[in-house]
Amino acid sequence: MIVIGEKLNTSIEEVGEAVQNGDVETIKELALSQVRAGAAYIDVNCGTFVDREPELLSWMTEILTEYTDTPLCIDSPNPRAIEEALKVTGKCKPIINSITGQRQRYNSILPLILEYGTSVISLCMDDDGIPYTVDARVSVAERLVEDLVRDGVDYEDIFIDPMVQPMATDQSSGQVALETIVGIKERLPGIKTICGLSNISFGLPERSSVNKAFLVLAIKAGLDAAILDPTDHGIVSLAYAAKLMSSRDDYCLGYLESIRRLKGR
Amino acid sequence: MIVIGEKLNTSIEEVGEAVQNGDVETIKELALSQVRAGAAYIDVNCGTFVDREPELLSWMTEILTEYTDTPLCIDSPNPRAIEEALKVTGKCKPIINSITGQRQRYNSILPLILEYGTSVISLCMDDDGIPYTVDARVSVAERLVEDLVRDGVDYEDIFIDPMVQPMATDQSSGQVALETIVGIKERLPGIKTICGLSNISFGLPERSSVNKAFLVLAIKAGLDAAILDPTDHGIVSLAYAAKLMSSRDDYCLGYLESIRRLKGR
Repeated sequence: MIVIGEKLNTSIEEVGEAVQNGDVETIKELALSQVRAGAAYIDVNCGTFVDREPELLSWMTEILTEYTDTPLCIDSPNPRAIEEALKVTGKCKPIINSITGQRQRYNSILPLILEYGTSVISLCMDDDGIPYTVDARVSVAERLVEDLVRDGVDYEDIFIDPMVQPMATDQSSGQVALETIVGIKERLPGIKTICGLSNISFGLPERSSVNKAFLVLAIKAGLDAAILDPTDHGIVSLAYAAKLMSSRDDYCLGYLESIRRLKGR
Repeated sequence: MIVIGEKLNTSIEEVGEAVQNGDVETIKELALSQVRAGAAYIDVNCGTFVDREPELLSWMTEILTEYTDTPLCIDSPNPRAIEEALKVTGKCKPIINSITGQRQRYNSILPLILEYGTSVISLCMDDDGIPYTVDARVSVAERLVEDLVRDGVDYEDIFIDPMVQPMATDQSSGQVALETIVGIKERLPGIKTICGLSNISFGLPERSSVNKAFLVLAIKAGLDAAILDPTDHGIVSLAYAAKLMSSRDDYCLGYLESIRRLKGR
């Protein structure tokens, strides 16, 4: 299970204030706590500062590059902001979060992947929007992967996000996302799948229970990576347990090792 | 989701001591806390007192019958202990936990189901043991249901337990239990399925995470009832969230109502 730490996002009040005030210590501490908890990547998102996004995403990236060796997940739809961040990213290969099949977005993000040799999260959507059916959504993923590989991106560097939409507005959205993961793993062998968790529970009570139930089912469906809070021991150990239930794990050695690492930190 | 409260089991130290000391208050409080938390049934188990089981199971049942209207789940393999408890069960229809396809056990439990008009939990095992394959296990369930119905038990009164065995000793046991649930729901339409959670995680660290991951997957597979701690808000709301992910729930109304009840208590 590849855990991407979600906590450096300016939509979280503490982070928004820290970025507003140039509070390096808070940013650093939120990064290090996620690294200590075992995050494989740290997501950075300054999306709430629309006008100053390039400047602030670059500022946050510089701090993270100085204090950790953990690679970053540069989270923005804005190619200029992504590029400013990539310029100050250290030697660890980052992920761009994200590209889509929308022509304009594709054409503006692709050169950055190639120039900076990054991995990339690819959302299952294009200029026609987010397909409603599983089959159409998997087809968008296939076309996107085909285009990326043709244009010079390594297959191994591509993560596919099935697009998780709120259950509150569409009660089939969980099932569609789960079946999309299964379809992607079938039709694109070996490709990595990823998603965030919070969208699924938007507008519902007891959101963390909905997020957790979805995470378990998504891992069973074939999810490889998730953007979540790595310092939340409960959700991380639940993810390892879901992995144990979903894979051949002789003598439970993978699970035992994961829990040992989790407790050792 | 039918929740059966697991807390009145003498293998739990506090309960064992209370039963040993004839401590009515503790038994009563453990029962009422489960009722307040929304348990549909209260499981009672005095299995650790092998020699005194009939006397003590009956004593515990009398207390519960006096203080709650919630039906009981009489949990014992011993027909004499079950009968002593049934004699003092109030007007609420209990469940006998459990019968199997083992001839001797079948023949000794069946008359109690019929005489006292109870429901019954039927384990997927017979005189050949617990079948290893999903197909054989579902076949044992089918034969058991066929026998029970032929002998006068209502189909609606039967709960099937797929037999959950520890992952630590057999890493396929989770998958086998999940597929057995799916097979039972396919081949015995409308039958209710049930299981306990703690067996799956026996011998592993972070047991509650393993139990939770299994519960989510089992509900998705078609589980109708679970023996668990109804006062553990986290696991109960996770069960409701798993149900939301697994069923057509227009406007999430079932989930919203379940959470409202859970919080209202």
